[in-house]
Amino acid sequence: MNSAAIIHCELCQQSGGEVVWDDPHCRVVLIAGPEGHAFPGFCRVIWRAHVCEMGDLLYQQREHLMKIVFLTEMALRRLIQPDKINLASLGNMTPHLHWHVIPRWHNDSHFPAPIWAAPRRAEPQRIRPERDAMHAAMAAALIEFFGAHSTFNSP
Amino acid sequence: MNSAAIIHCELCQQSGGEVVWDDPHCRVVLIAGPEGHAFPGFCRVIWRAHVCEMGDLLYQQREHLMKIVFLTEMALRRLIQPDKINLASLGNMTPHLHWHVIPRWHNDSHFPAPIWAAPRRAEPQRIRPERDAMHAAMAAALIEFFGAHSTFNSP
Repeated sequence: MNSAAIIHCELCQQSGGEVVWDDPHCRVVLIAGPEGHAFPGFCRVIWRAHVCEMGDLLYQQREHLMKIVFLTEMALRRLIQPDKINLASLGNMTPHLHWHVIPRWHNDSHFPAPIWAAPRRAEPQRIRPERDAMHAAMAAALIEFFGAHSTFNSP
Repeated sequence: MNSAAIIHCELCQQSGGEVVWDDPHCRVVLIAGPEGHAFPGFCRVIWRAHVCEMGDLLYQQREHLMKIVFLTEMALRRLIQPDKINLASLGNMTPHLHWHVIPRWHNDSHFPAPIWAAPRRAEPQRIRPERDAMHAAMAAALIEFFGAHSTFNSP
């Protein structure tokens, strides 16, 4: 990867949100701003290195990243009980590998449409999980997951 | 899962597209109609059983499904060389676990927005891959993948 791409990549230069968990390979961030307001608990799981597609990772790297994505889903479901979880890796605007983990509710501003479609209604008030609560939920999910599946190999 | 949910679920009752690969756990379908026209090669990977979220699967089932999602990405990139791949598991309308594997081009109708946003321009003409070509690309990706990673365990 050339250094110009990295210098101009916002996910190489910035955290992309409040970090609630990280390891040498990826980080989980809680999204603030309008997206975090509309979809409280909205997280992104961001691969550390500047890589474009899932298929550009090695098999063990893909497996590691998806474990963290599903742990984030698990933590969010337990913490805030959304009606649905949406997962997406798009990267058209920011081609640095990241996953959206989006809690959805039947009465949220866009449901049942994807959050990128036009809104259908006003946003209901919801409490946004705080960094510490999300951090604790991630930690609990990690412990449960790796207690049940002890073969956690770093990529 | 109650039987009423299954009777009314279109992914329990129908294939959801032209099947290009399947096994006892999931199938890969090539999407026809307007979505397939706008994004040639658009595939969905559909879990066979009526399950709602990735977190509702067992670990080995999740791993199996994601292997097939990434193989589909690999097959599409090789066959049609899109500029980007978009992956998403939403299921707000049809809460039966399925992954969208969407080839994107810099000049497609929505780029760089997600395909669920408002279109930005007319669709350029593109050749849609045929079932046989997609089938062959999937087979080649499977052989390469499982040649390199021989520990393929069914869930």
